[in-house]
Amino acid sequence: MTVLILTSKDDVTADMVVTRLHDAAVPVMRLDPADLPVNTLLSARYAHGDFEGLLSANGHVVSMGGLRSVWVRRPGEPAAHADEPSAWLTAETRQALFGMLYSASARWMNHPREAERARLKPWQLRTAHLTGFAVPPTVVTTVPRLARQFAEEYGEVVVKSASGPPPGEPPMALPTTLIGPDSDFSGVAAGPALLQRYVPKRADIRLTCVGGRLFAARKEADPDQVDGRYGDTGHTWEPAEVPDRIRKSVHDYVDMAGLAYAAFDFAEDEDGFWWFLECNQSGQFGFVELETGQPISEAVAQWLSRPARG
Amino acid sequence: MTVLILTSKDDVTADMVVTRLHDAAVPVMRLDPADLPVNTLLSARYAHGDFEGLLSANGHVVSMGGLRSVWVRRPGEPAAHADEPSAWLTAETRQALFGMLYSASARWMNHPREAERARLKPWQLRTAHLTGFAVPPTVVTTVPRLARQFAEEYGEVVVKSASGPPPGEPPMALPTTLIGPDSDFSGVAAGPALLQRYVPKRADIRLTCVGGRLFAARKEADPDQVDGRYGDTGHTWEPAEVPDRIRKSVHDYVDMAGLAYAAFDFAEDEDGFWWFLECNQSGQFGFVELETGQPISEAVAQWLSRPARG
Repeated sequence: MTVLILTSKDDVTADMVVTRLHDAAVPVMRLDPADLPVNTLLSARYAHGDFEGLLSANGHVVSMGGLRSVWVRRPGEPAAHADEPSAWLTAETRQALFGMLYSASARWMNHPREAERARLKPWQLRTAHLTGFAVPPTVVTTVPRLARQFAEEYGEVVVKSASGPPPGEPPMALPTTLIGPDSDFSGVAAGPALLQRYVPKRADIRLTCVGGRLFAARKEADPDQVDGRYGDTGHTWEPAEVPDRIRKSVHDYVDMAGLAYAAFDFAEDEDGFWWFLECNQSGQFGFVELETGQPISEAVAQWLSRPARG
Repeated sequence: MTVLILTSKDDVTADMVVTRLHDAAVPVMRLDPADLPVNTLLSARYAHGDFEGLLSANGHVVSMGGLRSVWVRRPGEPAAHADEPSAWLTAETRQALFGMLYSASARWMNHPREAERARLKPWQLRTAHLTGFAVPPTVVTTVPRLARQFAEEYGEVVVKSASGPPPGEPPMALPTTLIGPDSDFSGVAAGPALLQRYVPKRADIRLTCVGGRLFAARKEADPDQVDGRYGDTGHTWEPAEVPDRIRKSVHDYVDMAGLAYAAFDFAEDEDGFWWFLECNQSGQFGFVELETGQPISEAVAQWLSRPARG
């Protein structure tokens, strides 16, 4: 029974997991959907009430009946590396590949359906509320008056992107930015803005959940820095204890979201209280494992190695 | 409690349902996500464990707490009509709109998560098998040898697109085409092909399922025509009885797929037997209603009018 990893060629985080799977003698196929149909073959047959499918890449063949699990890491767009790429070839190739994979009974980390919903930041905030996390008050709006009103109510707020930085080259960093009620909010009318009450933080918390196993890491914050993701705070990630209340909420959240893997970001305030900031269903874990020594890649490999649901 | 209809401006099928909702005095908001944020306002607030959201368009305001149901008809891309459209503005606007709508407890016809999976044609074939439909043997492959082998086994096969015709202007028709085992299959290597055993048909069947209510229509086929969707067969759609076996399979299919609305296409063969061809989760129903007089738009309006799940 094979583990299928969908990711692009250069992915050191995937490499870490592949090493663990090799150590455990679990068969692995690593495949970038972008390489279909040039370097990778696909064939599925639906006949007589039954279904057979196979993928072939790098001299390996995997049948859908022999598929244990699928790890969606950082896959490229289907057929993006074709000789004559087109939107239509991508659509047809996506149909063939994911239509076949969805027909199998493999376990997913994470299923694209769950991933798509879990990416919606407003839905994350609502789900965090429902599962008992403390969430800083947030507004997502296209109305300048309501944005200003929110800033006046809370004094200091941060403005963030909901979908991440704008695409394109060179990559653009978009750090979370602190603003006050006297800012110019007129631009909000041109595109929705996400504003959140600023949480003065003592530390950043990254909590990685792998099929119910929790790994929390903590990094002291630089009090002068709003968004510690960009730049060196002079501190490193250290393993942290997970409070019982948080543990329960994490389990409820991943259950409700249907996620086998999730990376939660919290802000630890001056009182040691954890505030939910976001839950990234495909968040990186390599940097945490390297600094803390927590066996996250092993946990991922173990989850992927379990038998298919059959 | 309001019904929200996400669709573009010119949509006569939506008009039919809006008329029914007006007749029943059910409040309706019709909105094209492409009009955000220029002609449509959006604001959502997540605070104190609660959630409030509103949409405002054409002088109407709808709160998320007052949302009964959402009908995803033919919505445009979020923010496509903005003064300066961009992929990033679309991504941010999708986050804001769908993040807010997913946070509400409205009923969906159909939820985008279910719709995305239901569009995958190979998954449709597998689900049709599992729910007891008869499905013509089908292969989806990038391997010319396997495509030829399939055609040799069945003699006459049709080749179809899985994702629909190529996008772009002018629109390109892509009728299902009959081919034999002597065809040139080399092009299969350049992009996945979907081949299906040809079913010589006596009639086309369109079965529309609206929240469990079934409307079947039948149109005599022109024996010389493989794909009756393009061109006049000289026959019209007539109401048809649904065989009990089909009725049960349809209910099981929409349950498994999580679809409130689905349009099934069958081929009726020489023996009167119905073969599953596809299930389109956003299939048109206007032409069937006009020719058969079946009250499909009323059934859609009634489904949308039921109370929210709360």
